[in-house]
Amino acid sequence: MSMASGFGFELLQIDAQTAARLGRLTTPHGTVETPVFMPVGTQATVKGLTGDQIRSTGASLILGNTYHLALRPGSERIEGLGGLHQFMGWDGPILTDSGGFQIFSLAERAKITEHSAQFRSHIDGSLLDLTPEESTRIQERLGSDIAMVLDHVVALPCERPLVEEAMQRSTRWAARCLAAATRTEQAQFAIVQGGLDLELRQASAEALTALPFDGFAVGGLSVGEPPSEMVRIIHGTTLHLPSNKPRYLMGVGRPIDLLEGIAGGIDMFDCVMPTRNGRNALGFTWNGTLRLRNARHADDRRPIDQACPCLACRHSRAYLRHLFMAKEMLGPILLTHHNLTFYQQLMAEAQRQIAAGTFSKWLQLQRLTLGEAAD
Amino acid sequence: MSMASGFGFELLQIDAQTAARLGRLTTPHGTVETPVFMPVGTQATVKGLTGDQIRSTGASLILGNTYHLALRPGSERIEGLGGLHQFMGWDGPILTDSGGFQIFSLAERAKITEHSAQFRSHIDGSLLDLTPEESTRIQERLGSDIAMVLDHVVALPCERPLVEEAMQRSTRWAARCLAAATRTEQAQFAIVQGGLDLELRQASAEALTALPFDGFAVGGLSVGEPPSEMVRIIHGTTLHLPSNKPRYLMGVGRPIDLLEGIAGGIDMFDCVMPTRNGRNALGFTWNGTLRLRNARHADDRRPIDQACPCLACRHSRAYLRHLFMAKEMLGPILLTHHNLTFYQQLMAEAQRQIAAGTFSKWLQLQRLTLGEAAD
Repeated sequence: MSMASGFGFELLQIDAQTAARLGRLTTPHGTVETPVFMPVGTQATVKGLTGDQIRSTGASLILGNTYHLALRPGSERIEGLGGLHQFMGWDGPILTDSGGFQIFSLAERAKITEHSAQFRSHIDGSLLDLTPEESTRIQERLGSDIAMVLDHVVALPCERPLVEEAMQRSTRWAARCLAAATRTEQAQFAIVQGGLDLELRQASAEALTALPFDGFAVGGLSVGEPPSEMVRIIHGTTLHLPSNKPRYLMGVGRPIDLLEGIAGGIDMFDCVMPTRNGRNALGFTWNGTLRLRNARHADDRRPIDQACPCLACRHSRAYLRHLFMAKEMLGPILLTHHNLTFYQQLMAEAQRQIAAGTFSKWLQLQRLTLGEAAD
Repeated sequence: MSMASGFGFELLQIDAQTAARLGRLTTPHGTVETPVFMPVGTQATVKGLTGDQIRSTGASLILGNTYHLALRPGSERIEGLGGLHQFMGWDGPILTDSGGFQIFSLAERAKITEHSAQFRSHIDGSLLDLTPEESTRIQERLGSDIAMVLDHVVALPCERPLVEEAMQRSTRWAARCLAAATRTEQAQFAIVQGGLDLELRQASAEALTALPFDGFAVGGLSVGEPPSEMVRIIHGTTLHLPSNKPRYLMGVGRPIDLLEGIAGGIDMFDCVMPTRNGRNALGFTWNGTLRLRNARHADDRRPIDQACPCLACRHSRAYLRHLFMAKEMLGPILLTHHNLTFYQQLMAEAQRQIAAGTFSKWLQLQRLTLGEAAD
């Protein structure tokens, strides 16, 4: 299999001061302006939101988890029900990960061999055996627009030989995934590994870009390393990726991490941070984070952000605090909607700043405010 | 205080075969066609739904709980934040109960004296003392359109002397609530008590209807008695209520109970059944109830009800089952929306049948199907 039909990436603009880019992804389920943030829909749902609500955050492309969906309700079942789009009622584009990261982070006693990843289900403890070919097959059954290759993720810090071995295996597995792919309408993305070692990252990027993938991800980051190290690896990796293919930084991160990623030439992001933190009463704003359970909000008539068009910002901080204190579902629902809306607005503003040639200056301002505690 | 300004009830039609009525409530926050079902918004939220979603079920009037809101976040706080409508972002009419039923069902070691109900908070165990006057004051702070009098509810079955004593006390408390009311724009509803004894019910109704209340509730039912007993008491009570005032059957019930209530001359209903059951995977349909966790739905592409306009019925039963099995919030959210939509459609259809003069015949058909298990 080579490049997917109905899939494309158009590079529209490159920033003069940074490696930031404006682009446009074309998929069988619609086009996506980049840089883009993908909400995570782990179990065929972005936790707490209806499809209309996901769309109203500004999201265009969402992520589904191969590992979770393969365990429950099963990829054959989803295929039989018309595929993931129809199953969850989302008619926009979907990217599915390969399961590699979840096997690393969730599965019990994972055992990686050249053949496959063997692990026990975190749901019922049953023994599973995931080959690169099976990961590809599962993603074909799910019918996502973009499939990721199965990769071998290691925890950082890690000995160089182990990082190298995992990277080399990931490269071989990527080739096996590509060879196994049969659906011409599904794009295949490779994942660059190599830990915090730029030589290994370069070797990984060069090996993978020699193959006809539709896009390239930077994987294995945001697993314990300092933010400055992450930025260094992003810049040192995108340098070796073709400019005419989309680049995806997997599982990252905080708002400022996304902007640093954009400055490093990344086009696509996903992270559970806005949704998971939203369920746990932490809201994101342009001035930093707000802990909505904080007593200081108890009588505060102001919304989180007057200018925000989300469902939470129709209400006072006092009401949101009440919902969290009373353990009402609506608290997580509203704050998830707010945080996802904020992440989308962050991407939209980054796009505007790149288009206006002011991204670099704007990024410097954001570095001062986005990471603060606003309450 | 006598009858509220800005509040009214217009009796539009009475069924020829039953005591069913069509009416129209006017409140400061809009008009309501009756018979009407009120979703329960216990803690200033109908669990899991945004205001737009509540509205889209067809709901026009919702219920808030004085007991819960007084404990958390507190009625002074809600008043300071602009009242319950503004606090929860609901601009339609709101009815608040008085706390009587929650003290009976939730509070620990409630002690009823002529002066007040003393009880311990179910949240933090603190000792509270609720007089009829304080219940009225709390509801004035909340700013609901319709306030209920504080009543003394007893569990059934119960010795006649105790039922009578509680009924007599409820009557005296009702008069104290009415005397304490100061907001002319808030309607005051009395609550008929008397257990399963029609003589006591009649005495209660006659004493209360001698006072200038804006409406009358039938309380103390659905607390353990058989459905046939409930129907007997409804008919025997509404007989003694004025036809030109709205009648509200508190805390009832199953779909068929609502229709029997309508046949008995009831105009207003509230119940946690559609919301609580929705969170627990039980769906209501015209053909009976569906248990969405049932394995038989695992591959079922059909929605719960093809003709239903709710958010759940955009999805397959298979997807809904998956959400419940995976413990995803979206399952309770969607099924709550479905059940509330069904309850609203039940009321809308009852209104149409009364208007067409076919209610009695239609009710007989519903008795055969509404109570079944559809899966």
